Amino acid sequence: MKAELVFIGHIETPYKTKDECPRNISKDGPLCTIVLKEKYEEGLYRLEPGQKILILYWFENVNRKLYRQYSGKTGRYAGLFALRTPNRPNPIAAATLKIEKIEGCRIFVKGLDCISGTPLLDIKPDINDIR
Amino acid sequence: MKAELVFIGHIETPYKTKDECPRNISKDGPLCTIVLKEKYEEGLYRLEPGQKILILYWFENVNRKLYRQYSGKTGRYAGLFALRTPNRPNPIAAATLKIEKIEGCRIFVKGLDCISGTPLLDIKPDINDIR
Repeated sequence: MKAELVFIGHIETPYKTKDECPRNISKDGPLCTIVLKEKYEEGLYRLEPGQKILILYWFENVNRKLYRQYSGKTGRYAGLFALRTPNRPNPIAAATLKIEKIEGCRIFVKGLDCISGTPLLDIKPDINDIR
Repeated sequence: MKAELVFIGHIETPYKTKDECPRNISKDGPLCTIVLKEKYEEGLYRLEPGQKILILYWFENVNRKLYRQYSGKTGRYAGLFALRTPNRPNPIAAATLKIEKIEGCRIFVKGLDCISGTPLLDIKPDINDIR
C-alpha cells in the first residue's frame, strides 16, 4: 500500500549543501523562512507569532533501505528507528519551532537544519500550544 | 511535485470507528500496539522501553482540500495549519509517546487516538530522548 504526498511549499535556510547543514535544529540558529504556496495561505488563519509549531518536511536523495547505521551524533550503531537519520523508509523530518513572525505566506523561524529549497509537507500547532 | 510514502506497519487500538476515537492522545489511555512489518524489525535495534518516540501515521479518508474549519477542541474557526485536524493536504498525524515494552515487531504504548488498522509511516526517538 502506498500514499501520495503533495509539497505545500518549501524552506529557505542559509545552507546550500548537506555538508553545511547543522546536525539538528537550534533555537538560537539563523533566521529561516517557511514559504507556503499561495493557494494554502488561508490555512494560516489564526496561527500566531510566539506560537510553537511542528513542521514536517521531506528529505530528498536519501537511502530509504538502510535499516541500521552509525549515529552521526553519538557514534553508536543502531537501527534507523532509534536514530533521527534522514535515511528512512519515509524520509519525513519533524521539527518543533517558535514562530518569530508571519508575513503573508512566509513564516519566520530560527535554526532549521536543512538545505535551502527543502520541500514542506505540513505545519501543525505544537500539541502543547494549541490556541 | 509529489512524493510517495510506504506503509511500514499499522497501529492496533481499541477503536473501530472514528466516533469511538478520543480527540487526542492521552498518556493514561488504554494499551495500544504499533506493529512493524517484519522486514523492518532490524531497524528497531537499540530502541528501548521507557524511551520516548515520535510516531507518524496516516489518516485515510479525509478531506485534503478543506483549508479552514471549526476546531473540534475549542470550537474556534481557524486555518488548518492552526489546528490538529486530520483534514490536511498531507494527512500525517504525529504523536509523542513512551514505549511500555517491545516484543519483536510490536511496540506497546498507551493512549493512541486513531482507528485500529491505521497505517504507520515512521518511528523516531523524541528529539529530547536520543540515546
